Amino acid sequence: MSEAVVACCQLEIVLGDPDANRATAAAAVRAAAGRGAHIVVLPELASSGYAFTDQREARRFAESTNGPTVRSWAALAAELDIVVVGGFCEQGADGRLHNSAVLADCSGVRAIHRKAHLWDREKLLFAPGDRPPPVVSTAFGRLAMMVCYDLEFPEYVRQVAVAGAELLCAPTNWPAFPRPDDERPMEVVRVQALAATNRIFIAACDRAREERGAQWVGASVVVDPDGWPLAGPLDGPVAGVALASCRLGLARDKRLTERNDVLADRRPELYRLPAVARASAITPPDALSTSP
Amino acid sequence: MSEAVVACCQLEIVLGDPDANRATAAAAVRAAAGRGAHIVVLPELASSGYAFTDQREARRFAESTNGPTVRSWAALAAELDIVVVGGFCEQGADGRLHNSAVLADCSGVRAIHRKAHLWDREKLLFAPGDRPPPVVSTAFGRLAMMVCYDLEFPEYVRQVAVAGAELLCAPTNWPAFPRPDDERPMEVVRVQALAATNRIFIAACDRAREERGAQWVGASVVVDPDGWPLAGPLDGPVAGVALASCRLGLARDKRLTERNDVLADRRPELYRLPAVARASAITPPDALSTSP
Repeated sequence: MSEAVVACCQLEIVLGDPDANRATAAAAVRAAAGRGAHIVVLPELASSGYAFTDQREARRFAESTNGPTVRSWAALAAELDIVVVGGFCEQGADGRLHNSAVLADCSGVRAIHRKAHLWDREKLLFAPGDRPPPVVSTAFGRLAMMVCYDLEFPEYVRQVAVAGAELLCAPTNWPAFPRPDDERPMEVVRVQALAATNRIFIAACDRAREERGAQWVGASVVVDPDGWPLAGPLDGPVAGVALASCRLGLARDKRLTERNDVLADRRPELYRLPAVARASAITPPDALSTSP
Repeated sequence: MSEAVVACCQLEIVLGDPDANRATAAAAVRAAAGRGAHIVVLPELASSGYAFTDQREARRFAESTNGPTVRSWAALAAELDIVVVGGFCEQGADGRLHNSAVLADCSGVRAIHRKAHLWDREKLLFAPGDRPPPVVSTAFGRLAMMVCYDLEFPEYVRQVAVAGAELLCAPTNWPAFPRPDDERPMEVVRVQALAATNRIFIAACDRAREERGAQWVGASVVVDPDGWPLAGPLDGPVAGVALASCRLGLARDKRLTERNDVLADRRPELYRLPAVARASAITPPDALSTSP
């Protein structure tokens, strides 16, 4: 089984300086490729920065899917014969803004994903995506892509496993929250659980450099299908790389035991989930209990 | 907001000695109640043991939902005015065996749950449940129940949050697998992620005492809606108690930020999941990618 070297480049991103951010990203991609990386993941909104004051400011740094950022990453992918995944601020043909990510390989852009679950003030800036996460076959394996808060919806992540993804690439900007001293960031715990639950690899690339008071976890990580970190989590919001060699084909084997398989053991007929209104106060429905 | 004291009693269970196991459980339930517990969770198959050779042997220790084990736990719940949740080997009216759990309070049996996702050789012994997990309102909070491998299906766990559960009680027999020295058991990592993803409390009660070569993780744990352990994980398969005071009402608040809510932010229209055949080798379907 062939090995794919996967790198998460945890970059220092400068809000509102796309030229500098593209240069930073290009240097990091080249350095990772120099260390053997076949698949390089960059952070969410890696060209623009994150903490926009309002939509007007975000729009100044928005680009089309044929803009300078996507062209730059696609050119790097072609030149280095690798896959590059990274987040950028997209302006769609209809003028709406999206928190998007691109996956490019030697043949060019393979997929664009518009973040489908928006975090906090992103709801004031961006239109959410309305598609399942993309899953594409590349020379190095079958790759899926989503962005940050998308990872907090296991129903969404499940789909990429069902679609045969071996590695889920996730640009993130994980906002820092307090946590107990001896605990891993919950973002990493979730990624571990998602990887093990679906028996896939996950590469989550976080970022560095405070923006307008927003600080980041800085915990980029590459996790295997057992849920164990192969590289990272990095130790905080400074520039760094989490790089690991991954036998991605292992993710095609969903068996846990002779009789268990994480996908085939699902009971979809039992997963009846009504839509939920904004639910800060839940009104309990009728009990679902079996009468004894 | 009132506090409920939740205890997981990690018991030494003796295969095929239900009288001894009921006595062990009763002593543990009384001891936990003596320490203030309002809700006591016992392991999976706590009356019978787990490692049956075949269905014939399992049947010898199977009981109805009005058998001595359920009656014993319901009597304890009534006498001590607490909730007791525990697993037992059920023989249904149609003669089929189930890996079941009961939730009893002062009024008697409130719910029976038949494990819906069967682990390994359980498939040779038991018929799987065919219901969503029960969720019932009690004097101490709104409680859900499932058994062990059920926890590895986040779609199934999601339902109890949607149904307003504050605490998910999960009897388990977690089989031990090798893991990196410095890592928590993946079973605990999953429980942490499930709790945080749904903003619910989870009490998972594991067990002790090797059976026919089967060893257990022994990592009983009570986790809060941020995903952090309040008690446990216990440190291996020996008898012990994980006991914590829980403000269960916190689980009714699903907000993460002013604009985020873990249930309302779901995008069910994007979670299109086909059934999956036994999938040890996945045939990739068409790519789900958005064309750029």
